[in-house]
Amino acid sequence: MQKIYLSEDEIPRQWYNLAVDLPGTVNPPLGQDGQPISPDMLAAVFPMNLIEQEVTTERWVDIPDGVLDLLYRWRPSPLHRAVHLEKALDTPAKIFYKNESVSPAGSHKPNTAVAQAWYNKEFGIKRLTTETGAGQWGSALSYACGMLGLECKVFMVRVSFDQKPFRKVLMQTWGGNCVASPSTETAVGREILEQMPDTPGSLGIAISEAIEQAVGDETGQTRYSLGSVLNHVMLHQTIIGLEAKKQLEKAGIKKVDTVIGCAGGGSNFAGLAFPFAYDKINGDNIEIIPVEPASCPTLTMTDFSYDHGDVAKMTPMLPMHSLGHKFIPAPIHAGGLRYHGMAPLVSHAVEAGLMTPMALKQLECYEAAMMFSRTEGLIVAPETSHAVAATIRKALEAKEEGKEKVIIFNLSGHGLMDLNGYEKFLAGELQNIALSAQDVEESRKISLEGHPIPKI
Amino acid sequence: MQKIYLSEDEIPRQWYNLAVDLPGTVNPPLGQDGQPISPDMLAAVFPMNLIEQEVTTERWVDIPDGVLDLLYRWRPSPLHRAVHLEKALDTPAKIFYKNESVSPAGSHKPNTAVAQAWYNKEFGIKRLTTETGAGQWGSALSYACGMLGLECKVFMVRVSFDQKPFRKVLMQTWGGNCVASPSTETAVGREILEQMPDTPGSLGIAISEAIEQAVGDETGQTRYSLGSVLNHVMLHQTIIGLEAKKQLEKAGIKKVDTVIGCAGGGSNFAGLAFPFAYDKINGDNIEIIPVEPASCPTLTMTDFSYDHGDVAKMTPMLPMHSLGHKFIPAPIHAGGLRYHGMAPLVSHAVEAGLMTPMALKQLECYEAAMMFSRTEGLIVAPETSHAVAATIRKALEAKEEGKEKVIIFNLSGHGLMDLNGYEKFLAGELQNIALSAQDVEESRKISLEGHPIPKI
Repeated sequence: MQKIYLSEDEIPRQWYNLAVDLPGTVNPPLGQDGQPISPDMLAAVFPMNLIEQEVTTERWVDIPDGVLDLLYRWRPSPLHRAVHLEKALDTPAKIFYKNESVSPAGSHKPNTAVAQAWYNKEFGIKRLTTETGAGQWGSALSYACGMLGLECKVFMVRVSFDQKPFRKVLMQTWGGNCVASPSTETAVGREILEQMPDTPGSLGIAISEAIEQAVGDETGQTRYSLGSVLNHVMLHQTIIGLEAKKQLEKAGIKKVDTVIGCAGGGSNFAGLAFPFAYDKINGDNIEIIPVEPASCPTLTMTDFSYDHGDVAKMTPMLPMHSLGHKFIPAPIHAGGLRYHGMAPLVSHAVEAGLMTPMALKQLECYEAAMMFSRTEGLIVAPETSHAVAATIRKALEAKEEGKEKVIIFNLSGHGLMDLNGYEKFLAGELQNIALSAQDVEESRKISLEGHPIPKI
Repeated sequence: MQKIYLSEDEIPRQWYNLAVDLPGTVNPPLGQDGQPISPDMLAAVFPMNLIEQEVTTERWVDIPDGVLDLLYRWRPSPLHRAVHLEKALDTPAKIFYKNESVSPAGSHKPNTAVAQAWYNKEFGIKRLTTETGAGQWGSALSYACGMLGLECKVFMVRVSFDQKPFRKVLMQTWGGNCVASPSTETAVGREILEQMPDTPGSLGIAISEAIEQAVGDETGQTRYSLGSVLNHVMLHQTIIGLEAKKQLEKAGIKKVDTVIGCAGGGSNFAGLAFPFAYDKINGDNIEIIPVEPASCPTLTMTDFSYDHGDVAKMTPMLPMHSLGHKFIPAPIHAGGLRYHGMAPLVSHAVEAGLMTPMALKQLECYEAAMMFSRTEGLIVAPETSHAVAATIRKALEAKEEGKEKVIIFNLSGHGLMDLNGYEKFLAGELQNIALSAQDVEESRKISLEGHPIPKI
């Protein structure tokens, strides 16, 4: 058996909220004054129904029928057994992957995009603004808005905008409007362009621009939508892991040893991992690995800190592993992993010892992606290549130990629109980029001085 | 219910061979002397096991386990009910589509690519050559060869090569070697480049180049592989329609009224339609519609004729609806529909009245694709847009008639790698192109004079 489907009536009907089960106290977002912010203070940015979801203390949250109706377009997604990769590695490990590349936008991002667009529409919102790195999130939100008849404005990090010209067309086809960030359309964009006209941009900058446009709409009909980091985004993505657990059961798997996902803001990783973290909290022995790029090593090289999510400090301070909100990451091809922070829930779970992060360099990841494309056949996104590389490491480890371990990773997206990275790799033009401890220390010093320190 | 899956153990285990059931006599391929060619005469081009399949008189052909093992990577493919399109059209018709875009290469082409590569490998072949138009077939064969460890050389029609730079990278990622055609690597390519240095190329030219390289390998380890037109290619694609029939049954559909597919060489159309043609031959009242571009109207505007499959007359003469093997089609974005001929089995079935072709212009097709992307969410390939447009026509017809018809079409591929066509459409830069009766007559006169006339 190479893949396991679920029928539509087997889809999970509730999302899982890890916040309820995390050890210790979940730190609240803080305002500029260092005091916890109230839900009301976010009302200009997000609709109240999503703000309520952001702070919910329910363990299981019902998925509305309207959202299910949107998810059925491509969900449940298939779970594959990577029999050909196993054979090539000659490993006793059983390798599974959840194939999120089958969504119309080609990644896991539509899972939360359709939910957010649906909740916004319910709340009477007509227009959403957002940022995008590699373009996966901007495509996903354009798609979701297209399906629901909402307007969508996307600020795309310039380096990716230039590397991936067709991403913009994809968003346009669904009705989205995409511009390179920093742009001249916002005050923060104009200011940055004056100071650094050649900046490759960053997610932190693009977020600032998108929030500025949302809160600046005096009709009150525009809100901002974030594709990762926040609790409600993680919540929506848990459908990945919840489906996967049902599928593993169908495949006769009783015990999972290792769960792997690439981690930029944390959402695809959390989506697969949180339902397994629930089992771990309840006693199962599971290794859970978020994999990040060595050029943007938030989990592996930074302390748990309070920091802003964007460069202009328009977001509250969130408890995160962070390189500092002013950090501009190197232009690696895994654009979706170029974020200075990490989802508070993932950061907290790592801090609590539930998860063990790993940082990998670009070349190992592309080599792994090539091996995957020549065995399993799928061309994975540059982000996903980090999960593939970690999976290969763990499968070879199982081989050395002679153990028949069960490994599952999240195939978060395909790379059909990111082939310029493969082109450069095949031409031998890519190199490894890694931050040193000193780089990290300097970057954090610039951004984080004076910020409060979260505790667990 | 928005989609119906089959599990791996529900996959069809046999292909369906329409040749056995076609009314009248199936005309054989003819050599330059006008006499039927023997299987031996094709041995330099194809492996004998596929030649046997080309002329088989079995109605049902077993799918080898080795081929099934390759198909399981993405098959059975989902059948979707287009509930959102139905709603937008306010039609009483039930619209279904078979989603072939879920294959690793993004189209139906891998169905025959993996089968052909597998049979060639069984026969001891080490290297395959082929042509590609839009790039779907070249990607699919590169994929199949990559999975089986064969070498793959692809001649890609220049206009598509230039329009779609990332297609080449995709093929390279799977290990394929892709060059623009006409190329300087073959005698026929060099000759054409001398006469017409600025030619956009054509499938007919690219086929000549690929065959020249295959038969020119003195080690005997190279063969040629064709992605459409031939009987064994149609055979391999019938898994699409056979799966669809099982899925429609699961969805409670007792009777299909209309079956639609876009048709260039004929393979995705045949794949869906032939199993329904079997039902039609056995008494069911089904309308079966191959849809072609008005700029390359083989079925709607030409007589059934004997013609070569390639510009250099390296192939035998096949009984086809043909614009003449010297025809160079306009550079429309649906590169896969730019072929001068049509599969003999499809041509014969149309001639016998089993199928009723339709020709559509480019703008109606892009408008239909846009409507589809804003309702069902999937961005279809420019080729597939022809099937979508015909489906919308038939659904609106059902609305006028007030009939609850069941329509099924083949979503042959996604358009994520063909977004330049959408970009030009959105910018208002595309126009309609249609051949006149006089264009057709002149083109046929140049190529077909003196060729024998097939009968049924």
